[in-house]
Amino acid sequence: MSQVTCDLTISLDGFASGPNQSMTDPLGEGGELLHRWQFEESQANAAAREGILAAGAYIMGRNMFAGPGTWAEEWRGWWGEDPPYHAPVYVLTHQPREPLEMQGGTTFTFVTDGIESALAQARTAAGSKDVAIAGGAQTVRQFLSAGLIDELRLHIAPIVLGAGERLLDGVANLKLEPTEVSGTGLVTHVRYRVIR
Amino acid sequence: MSQVTCDLTISLDGFASGPNQSMTDPLGEGGELLHRWQFEESQANAAAREGILAAGAYIMGRNMFAGPGTWAEEWRGWWGEDPPYHAPVYVLTHQPREPLEMQGGTTFTFVTDGIESALAQARTAAGSKDVAIAGGAQTVRQFLSAGLIDELRLHIAPIVLGAGERLLDGVANLKLEPTEVSGTGLVTHVRYRVIR
Repeated sequence: MSQVTCDLTISLDGFASGPNQSMTDPLGEGGELLHRWQFEESQANAAAREGILAAGAYIMGRNMFAGPGTWAEEWRGWWGEDPPYHAPVYVLTHQPREPLEMQGGTTFTFVTDGIESALAQARTAAGSKDVAIAGGAQTVRQFLSAGLIDELRLHIAPIVLGAGERLLDGVANLKLEPTEVSGTGLVTHVRYRVIR
Repeated sequence: MSQVTCDLTISLDGFASGPNQSMTDPLGEGGELLHRWQFEESQANAAAREGILAAGAYIMGRNMFAGPGTWAEEWRGWWGEDPPYHAPVYVLTHQPREPLEMQGGTTFTFVTDGIESALAQARTAAGSKDVAIAGGAQTVRQFLSAGLIDELRLHIAPIVLGAGERLLDGVANLKLEPTEVSGTGLVTHVRYRVIR
């Protein structure tokens, strides 16, 4: 059955990005260290990496699409002309904008009427496939707090960032059950079922 | 070779205890949920539980021994007359006190001259066995920051406490490598080697 999933990499102290995010440093200070496992150990982490991009539709926050800088009408995302999603991506924003069709099947659709609307559109687009909440941390928190995520897949990097944006700050009453653990020298993967 | 180890259970948001610790609620609000895995799944987590009590000597902070209440000369710890350690336990404190010999091989020795002194005494007592930093979070942080821990074994409970004492707050420059992961429905065990 189609699920709502979320993959997120966090530091051991719970940060999904480092401090002082900017257009030139979108992951914040030290934030790129979170993702070493994806690049330096891509083979060993193939299953986890493929899982991140297996959904039939994606939802992301405005900051994940455009970064902390000024929203520009000509901005086309961080991923070049052929983004890795190859599926519809719904971007939460308050500023209406025409859909943006990229190469390879990725279309960014801008949703101004909230997370439930984005989820309904994404579910329809995904069909029998999963809907993935792609990030960032604030968007994931919104979906978690609303009880809309079925499976949270955390990728815990063995680093301490000390500051930045914490995934779970302010998320109350979250009941989780770990269902699978695995890992390498650069990451620990934990798959959690969200208990309703 | 003898190592300095540390086992600590933390919530998914990084807390080693809940908020508002007191003599009647030494783990803080919600803190007892951290340790469900030890009591409700004792068989499934037998290896991890045995690892916690395999050391030849232990070091703990004053608050772990006596709680947040008034230090009383007649206080004999939280563990009854036959504590589970069955080995020398060195308690960090500023108040001198005579050693306290309990049943079953546990002796609490009160160390007033700092963590290095406690570690030296514990190493001598442990011989070829490991020295374990038993807690609480503040004491673990001191040893981590001083680079004195070889292996950190985190037991991550799938709960969000939201407040309390965070293990890794203020610990900078910590380099870790996960070497083993396992778990059950109530806990994820991750063994980290501290990289020097």
